[in-house]
Amino acid sequence: MRMHYLDGRTELTTVNFFTPVQEHIPLVEARMRDQSRGHHPDLQAAMEHLLDAGGKRVRPIVCLLAGGMLGATRERNITLAAAVELLHTATLVHDDMIDGALLRRGIPTLNASWSPAATILTGDFIFARAAKLAAETNSIEVMNLFAKTLSTIVNGEITQMFSGRGVASRENYFERIYAKTASMFELASSAPVFLAGFGEETFEALRTYGYEIGMAFQIMDDILDFVSHESNLGKPVASDLRNGLVTLPALCHMELVPGAVDVLLALANGRTQSEAEVDQLIHSIRASGAIDMALDEATAFVERGLQSLDAMPLGSERNGLEELARFVVSRAT
Amino acid sequence: MRMHYLDGRTELTTVNFFTPVQEHIPLVEARMRDQSRGHHPDLQAAMEHLLDAGGKRVRPIVCLLAGGMLGATRERNITLAAAVELLHTATLVHDDMIDGALLRRGIPTLNASWSPAATILTGDFIFARAAKLAAETNSIEVMNLFAKTLSTIVNGEITQMFSGRGVASRENYFERIYAKTASMFELASSAPVFLAGFGEETFEALRTYGYEIGMAFQIMDDILDFVSHESNLGKPVASDLRNGLVTLPALCHMELVPGAVDVLLALANGRTQSEAEVDQLIHSIRASGAIDMALDEATAFVERGLQSLDAMPLGSERNGLEELARFVVSRAT
Repeated sequence: MRMHYLDGRTELTTVNFFTPVQEHIPLVEARMRDQSRGHHPDLQAAMEHLLDAGGKRVRPIVCLLAGGMLGATRERNITLAAAVELLHTATLVHDDMIDGALLRRGIPTLNASWSPAATILTGDFIFARAAKLAAETNSIEVMNLFAKTLSTIVNGEITQMFSGRGVASRENYFERIYAKTASMFELASSAPVFLAGFGEETFEALRTYGYEIGMAFQIMDDILDFVSHESNLGKPVASDLRNGLVTLPALCHMELVPGAVDVLLALANGRTQSEAEVDQLIHSIRASGAIDMALDEATAFVERGLQSLDAMPLGSERNGLEELARFVVSRAT
Repeated sequence: MRMHYLDGRTELTTVNFFTPVQEHIPLVEARMRDQSRGHHPDLQAAMEHLLDAGGKRVRPIVCLLAGGMLGATRERNITLAAAVELLHTATLVHDDMIDGALLRRGIPTLNASWSPAATILTGDFIFARAAKLAAETNSIEVMNLFAKTLSTIVNGEITQMFSGRGVASRENYFERIYAKTASMFELASSAPVFLAGFGEETFEALRTYGYEIGMAFQIMDDILDFVSHESNLGKPVASDLRNGLVTLPALCHMELVPGAVDVLLALANGRTQSEAEVDQLIHSIRASGAIDMALDEATAFVERGLQSLDAMPLGSERNGLEELARFVVSRAT
């Protein structure tokens, strides 16, 4: 029953967590697009392409909701939200290049048509503009958090790159998805605290919120990689596993079906498996209850995220953050 | 006579502009090395390699002298100097990768032994740590300046990449070397003003100083590329020209010897020239007076840099900045 959101047959009909900040989103978009103004036309074109490719803008929405809830001034909060999304965008540009990904969300990546040099530099430029916007919030704490988050993300990628392959533990997995995804959600949810002048306790509550829903968000991504149809995600089903990357559904599968470890190990170590063997493994993972087990894990993260909001000011923005947390485990794409 | 510093026969015997900040340099080094602590061991190794490769640390010296002259507190000034040098280092990592350079200062670049992915990420990590250090100076103006400088540098590289080849004008050349080199010197010389709490006038004076000596520094690099021996620079003589990049000595040569434009155009447009033809052109440039003409230009920049210090507090640090300015046009490497 819980799975009906995930099998592509049913779409969520009402997702309105963004209602309280709906009118701010176009301003965030405009703020991001402004960043290439006055620079080289090809750079402007690249920025437009990246921003047109869209995305759900979940991170800026988290930022706008948290800031709105705490009474941060609109202008600074919009600047912060734009900075967060640009930082995220810059990391994606370098990631896609490193992975050699030619599509993201079904739209060609920058590196699909640009040279490696131009792609590296465009990523660097977007880092610079994210930093510029962060500085414009006029908060040294925000700047600190930005720089720390970028260090965490990059260190995580380097760790993943240099770690020998193999079947990771849950602990490894959680560390990896923290660096990759949850750290940026933490930034989005907690940085507004500095704009609104609240203290340590509020910071900790909102940092926790971002951490928990960020973890859940990545687990859901990893679940969707197993259960979605190819057309939904714009990449082949179980692409991580096919690339030797073991995510939570596969780890759960191993716990449920101890014999599965050998095939997973072989895959993770890059030993060639026939496509039929891999398809069989994917089928087993889908059938073993591993998906539900991973979903339980994601739901537990979301529950903790919701709890962290207990002492936050009531109102439409807090409702929005709660709805967004629930959306994370119910989304179909 | 003026050229005796440049032909490799004579070395400067007394370069003591760094005396007033000599004891701070090891602290800056330590601050930079600290930035990889707690991160992945391979990342630490990469940082060590990059910092061991050294360099003259001219930018942090400028920063330390300017901050010392204005009475910035030692700790913050050291943090700032480390941030400036790390930002510079990060741009070099991506540059060397983009250029496919295997050596810098005669020492293997990161990309000579690392994968492109690891090199990109290491550069990103160093950007992040430069930003972290800049934030630790606790000055939002410093952060702003950092972000703006990085935008300028990257936009300059992208502009160079997308611009059609051809013989540039002096104006193009000056724009290019501003983005590439002088903008970072501006940062190094003017950011300390914010730590010391001086106003717009002092900022403008020190920004001008950084601009002028930064321009002179790059012109000297471009001159040295023509006059140095291969072993001094660790790269072949006139490597820019051989790669189709026209710098000030070649532009001066064109002004002195109008007929030279055809060969230069052919080179700049990537049309193959025999090695003998290129060697002949390099010989002509060296013989035409173009080097002296370029050196006059560099000296004029230095003179303006010295003038900009007129109203600055007297003392060993100001003397150091003046000496450093003169060193820029007398250095042999």
